[in-house]
Amino acid sequence: MVEGKQLIMLPGPTNVPDRVINAMTRPIINHRGPEFRELYDNLLEKLKYAFQTENDVFVLTSSGTGAVECAIGNIVSPGDKIAVPVNGVFSQRLKEKIEVFGGVPIEIPIEWGKAASPEQIAGAVAEQEVKAIAVVYNETSTGATMRGLDEVGKIAAEHDLLFIVDAISILGGDELPVDRWNIDICITGSQKCLACPPGLSMISVSDRAWEVIERTKSRTYYFNLLKIREFHERKETPFTPALPLWFALDEALSMLMEEGLEARIKRHERCARAFYGAIKELGLELFADERWLSNTVIAVKNPQGIADKDIRAIMREKYGVVIAGGMGKLKGAMFRIGNMGVVSEREVAATMSALRGALSELGYFK
Amino acid sequence: MVEGKQLIMLPGPTNVPDRVINAMTRPIINHRGPEFRELYDNLLEKLKYAFQTENDVFVLTSSGTGAVECAIGNIVSPGDKIAVPVNGVFSQRLKEKIEVFGGVPIEIPIEWGKAASPEQIAGAVAEQEVKAIAVVYNETSTGATMRGLDEVGKIAAEHDLLFIVDAISILGGDELPVDRWNIDICITGSQKCLACPPGLSMISVSDRAWEVIERTKSRTYYFNLLKIREFHERKETPFTPALPLWFALDEALSMLMEEGLEARIKRHERCARAFYGAIKELGLELFADERWLSNTVIAVKNPQGIADKDIRAIMREKYGVVIAGGMGKLKGAMFRIGNMGVVSEREVAATMSALRGALSELGYFK
Repeated sequence: MVEGKQLIMLPGPTNVPDRVINAMTRPIINHRGPEFRELYDNLLEKLKYAFQTENDVFVLTSSGTGAVECAIGNIVSPGDKIAVPVNGVFSQRLKEKIEVFGGVPIEIPIEWGKAASPEQIAGAVAEQEVKAIAVVYNETSTGATMRGLDEVGKIAAEHDLLFIVDAISILGGDELPVDRWNIDICITGSQKCLACPPGLSMISVSDRAWEVIERTKSRTYYFNLLKIREFHERKETPFTPALPLWFALDEALSMLMEEGLEARIKRHERCARAFYGAIKELGLELFADERWLSNTVIAVKNPQGIADKDIRAIMREKYGVVIAGGMGKLKGAMFRIGNMGVVSEREVAATMSALRGALSELGYFK
Repeated sequence: MVEGKQLIMLPGPTNVPDRVINAMTRPIINHRGPEFRELYDNLLEKLKYAFQTENDVFVLTSSGTGAVECAIGNIVSPGDKIAVPVNGVFSQRLKEKIEVFGGVPIEIPIEWGKAASPEQIAGAVAEQEVKAIAVVYNETSTGATMRGLDEVGKIAAEHDLLFIVDAISILGGDELPVDRWNIDICITGSQKCLACPPGLSMISVSDRAWEVIERTKSRTYYFNLLKIREFHERKETPFTPALPLWFALDEALSMLMEEGLEARIKRHERCARAFYGAIKELGLELFADERWLSNTVIAVKNPQGIADKDIRAIMREKYGVVIAGGMGKLKGAMFRIGNMGVVSEREVAATMSALRGALSELGYFK
């Protein structure tokens, strides 16, 4: 590859606009002083727009996994049952987190590449007395997006259950009206569709969720939501925030507002369609079922006799385009393209052109 | 204050050198690719130098509090007793963390402004069967540094206990030979004496600590050390790392190596002496007892009739110098100057000059 910036087409982290990168060079400020409190207010207002919520929203210094730990560690008491569809690496992780905190996951097993239907969730909830429904909206490991979350929100409300949504790899890239869909706790990460560097995660908390949190003994100190809320009152975080990343997120959210959330979602949809079209044209097979194809993660099965490792190496070394392999049991079986954040026809074209070049070199077109 | 960068004399975050700030603008890389693995190796080698250890060291995306949660959450089983001297806000937090994870803190209560002696710890350990001794080396809330950690390390070894040291606000600013002092788990943060922005924490783990961790059910998922070690084998982190902060930390550690650890510690000592001398000259009273005065946090009692709030406001607004107030029950009783990272005679002089100006304006010299 010639000297220069790589095109990062991973399912996170993503390419980050210069405006956002440069925001990190702002001078360090006192995280207990007036400069931070102003930033705090502005940033959280923008975040509410991104989440489409009037609920409380918070920023945590952690990867998205930390925010999921925050959600689970603050609402699960030992023995609590939580319904959780498992259809990939990240929903598997969600299930494991419930166990770490003493909860009992009521697993709804789903074939990888597909996603749970509202009916399947309704069935599980009818059979067992659960405290919450926890779902991964977009399974980053398989490229399958759950549909009908609005229906699941209604089921949760009817049964007076909490509805927890891990939207890490999708918020900003597909529909997600948190309040309208009755989502009590919604989680995302900085390094996905918001096109900010990694290191921050965000979480929204509804009044119904607060009621549960208030009567649950938190099983985490760093992610204790009551403590976070206490400091929120004075527009501070309980522990030192990752200031440069706050500056970056603030700028990334400004860019989201300038573009408009709807326009950003449409842009992701448009680029996803372009990716799927071009991939089918090449005769490649998608991993996820047609019904649940993700806007943000394009998962493609390895062509017969060609290893994704080799495809990815050529794309990276020769074309400077970085894509991901499979995760967990899917390692060595697929490659994944992130369609997140800074994506347009240009990034789609550059990625597909590198992919074609690599496939050609590996004898795919012979 | 005239337009320009503030002088951040907080007990963290600190001023950050331009070299370190600019490192954050490096392009995003794949955290599962060769570029990251190279960074990972280099960074951890430098970190071992900073810790003076051959033990494993890891970088976490969290504030220092997260790394303490990591230590406690991986070694405490319900009912385990941990000896912990409490002499300020941060040692109080350490005690609370032990409780959150089901442990039983055996508190050694110490007057705030003083620190525990090795004899007091030996006494507590002789009375009770404890699993570990956990101490805060430098109590950021009071400006008191514990002395005799080498002796405590010997006590821990004799009784076959783990020795856990929270060195968040001191590593790099005072003596801390982790291996020589027999420290099993040592913790620090990026935004203190290493002069890196906030958002990362670092933890070292000894072989003896691993033995305990291996037979303990981790009570945290995000900070699970066995999982962290598993990914460490392939030079990766289990969850997406805060890449720009890794770039910054790498650069900050290069600067530490260029200066030399010993020289950096001596510089902190020299500046601390200058601060203490100048403060006594003004007739101000220190909060910490003479015997335990910290190199890195200078805690000063409010002069009669003058509020630290007013001192700090004038220093910030008129002179652009930012210092901290008291924490917890010490709020409104003192101000604290951070003597960390980028400190030299120049920063001491600028801070003291701003302090004199503020005191003068508030009638202190009348």
